[in-house]
Amino acid sequence: MKYANIKNIDAKSGSFSLSNFKSNSSSFLFAISYTETATIPGLTIAGANTELIKFTPAADAEYIHYGRCRCIDSIPATPDGKPTPAIITKTALELANIPITIIDSGLAVKPILPHIDINSTFGRNIAVEKALELKDVMENYEMGRLIGKQVSKNNDLLIIGESIPGGTTTALGVLLLLGYDAYNKVSSSMPHNPHQLKNKIVEKSMLKSGIKFGDHQYDPFNAISHLGDPMMPTVLGMVQEILSSNKKVILAGGTQMCCIVALLKSLNIRFNNNLCIGTTSYVVNDAESSLDGLLNQIADDVPILYSDLGLDSSTKAGLRSYSEGFVKEGAGAGGATIAAYLKEQSITQKIFLHELEKNYSATIEKPIS
Amino acid sequence: MKYANIKNIDAKSGSFSLSNFKSNSSSFLFAISYTETATIPGLTIAGANTELIKFTPAADAEYIHYGRCRCIDSIPATPDGKPTPAIITKTALELANIPITIIDSGLAVKPILPHIDINSTFGRNIAVEKALELKDVMENYEMGRLIGKQVSKNNDLLIIGESIPGGTTTALGVLLLLGYDAYNKVSSSMPHNPHQLKNKIVEKSMLKSGIKFGDHQYDPFNAISHLGDPMMPTVLGMVQEILSSNKKVILAGGTQMCCIVALLKSLNIRFNNNLCIGTTSYVVNDAESSLDGLLNQIADDVPILYSDLGLDSSTKAGLRSYSEGFVKEGAGAGGATIAAYLKEQSITQKIFLHELEKNYSATIEKPIS
Repeated sequence: MKYANIKNIDAKSGSFSLSNFKSNSSSFLFAISYTETATIPGLTIAGANTELIKFTPAADAEYIHYGRCRCIDSIPATPDGKPTPAIITKTALELANIPITIIDSGLAVKPILPHIDINSTFGRNIAVEKALELKDVMENYEMGRLIGKQVSKNNDLLIIGESIPGGTTTALGVLLLLGYDAYNKVSSSMPHNPHQLKNKIVEKSMLKSGIKFGDHQYDPFNAISHLGDPMMPTVLGMVQEILSSNKKVILAGGTQMCCIVALLKSLNIRFNNNLCIGTTSYVVNDAESSLDGLLNQIADDVPILYSDLGLDSSTKAGLRSYSEGFVKEGAGAGGATIAAYLKEQSITQKIFLHELEKNYSATIEKPIS
Repeated sequence: MKYANIKNIDAKSGSFSLSNFKSNSSSFLFAISYTETATIPGLTIAGANTELIKFTPAADAEYIHYGRCRCIDSIPATPDGKPTPAIITKTALELANIPITIIDSGLAVKPILPHIDINSTFGRNIAVEKALELKDVMENYEMGRLIGKQVSKNNDLLIIGESIPGGTTTALGVLLLLGYDAYNKVSSSMPHNPHQLKNKIVEKSMLKSGIKFGDHQYDPFNAISHLGDPMMPTVLGMVQEILSSNKKVILAGGTQMCCIVALLKSLNIRFNNNLCIGTTSYVVNDAESSLDGLLNQIADDVPILYSDLGLDSSTKAGLRSYSEGFVKEGAGAGGATIAAYLKEQSITQKIFLHELEKNYSATIEKPIS
């Protein structure tokens, strides 16, 4: 069994047992970052237009805190108005009273709320130049370790989500440099995944730098420096320290989180049944990407957990679109939902959908001014 | 009984019971700020010279994390080399494995480590101009509330410390505006407390602004805006939310923390035996200030807890100086020690002093390069 539907709390995969992840002291860490790679036309719809994309990570964080945004007047959405998955994250964290910590892991636009500053630069466009200087990669990694050390002290379970538009393309790049066949497997916020564009960007960049598939198998930091983004080293450092404190981690996301697993592997980090990926059924069932095809190459002891939110039966068109291949995941939505179920097992799919639609009505249909 | 020596864990004061503060999920929040008031000659020795004073809060935070500083080459110290009280804080938090969160509540120099950014400006010199714009006071207060809300979810006890050179003078100013006789009562990092200078600064400033003693009794935000500093509204907001979540707070500090109690009072916040001041015996026994004389005017349901660190018997001259009237408290040292005792009751004065001296040898006598 590779996948476990979260509603089966007794799910086991080899020696991994989901019931061990039940926790009253879980905390959500939300790493938000920016890479100029997101400005490449056609790559992402995580923003109503190219100019707004750089606001999306900060706006996601603000939306989760306030139910509205402060750095922009609107709520992050696709060009045709499909709302950010942060609405799912918000609903989940509120229902289960799980605290959130926002981490600025390299932004172009800062959120107007308390957030952890690690003095990170944002990532450069990998189609044009190196993603990050190696020293900046190392600094984010060290800052991530410091964060991981502190959050492990009073928490048993850490759920780590991310928001970085363009992040699946940088994930593709790093996975290739680490020696994994990630072609046509990374996810997308669009129903039609622009794999050809992503492949072309990464291959051109590799050609230009004279690096090949698998060249950085044992050098994750240089892989990130060449083709990655600033979210990766921070999350890598955090997870490493949390696992070394023998605490549990849900990597809340899709194929980008596979890339984190690959980075951990390349550092020889032991998982000890304390690590899983938590996502939505919309990523797991996506025909245009392959979370499973990726993770199978990387690790056989990291289960994929998913929650089925039942959005196909929502009365809200914006939420139904998730089940039609749009957005699908992001802002740690799937993992946050799983954490909420694990903490408050009274939460049913019906209760969750009801709360989600209430939030949708209050903040998307009638935005608070 | 007003004071309780922390080693008496069964201490009670009215309906306040110290044993209720025992907690396995305590967390230390360290608000670090800067006010240009600290540049007034003769006011503070929290730094080897005037130029270095602005580095002290960031350097204190770095020292606690790394055992060395990154924003400066040395360890914060008085001009003649008496080390920062952050060494006590560091020892306490490490002994009891209590996590720390650094909050940049208005700095001139940022620490090189993960810290919460609330987008605060630093304070202006109250001898020359208004401390802060009212809108900035309100924004810090709101940010503090957001922080307080999140930290209350997974913690039962929050210890709040501060590092802001010149902070006793701004505390004096705000206490007077709130209608408390704070003349000659606030503490100092020097054995001879420059009360006359502090009084003169505050009185001149009040005269210039046309405001009088007690004018802002019910308007704490304007009191801070006129004569306060940016640490105050953030800590005020945090404590308010933590108390409203029915969690416990140790205000870790001396007379500056009395000012926070006064601000809470002026907002009509109920304490419900969940609030105390935690400090060192060196503040409590200081003949040049009066923590008791201040707090008696403000609240009769906020006990002062203190720890006697026994530094008079230390083999290290820099630590012995604390018992001779230098430094005395700061960086939440007293409160952090109390929290350590509350969490790990196996810690005796002897064990603590031994660890403290070990840290002193490793980081002050032989600084790690």
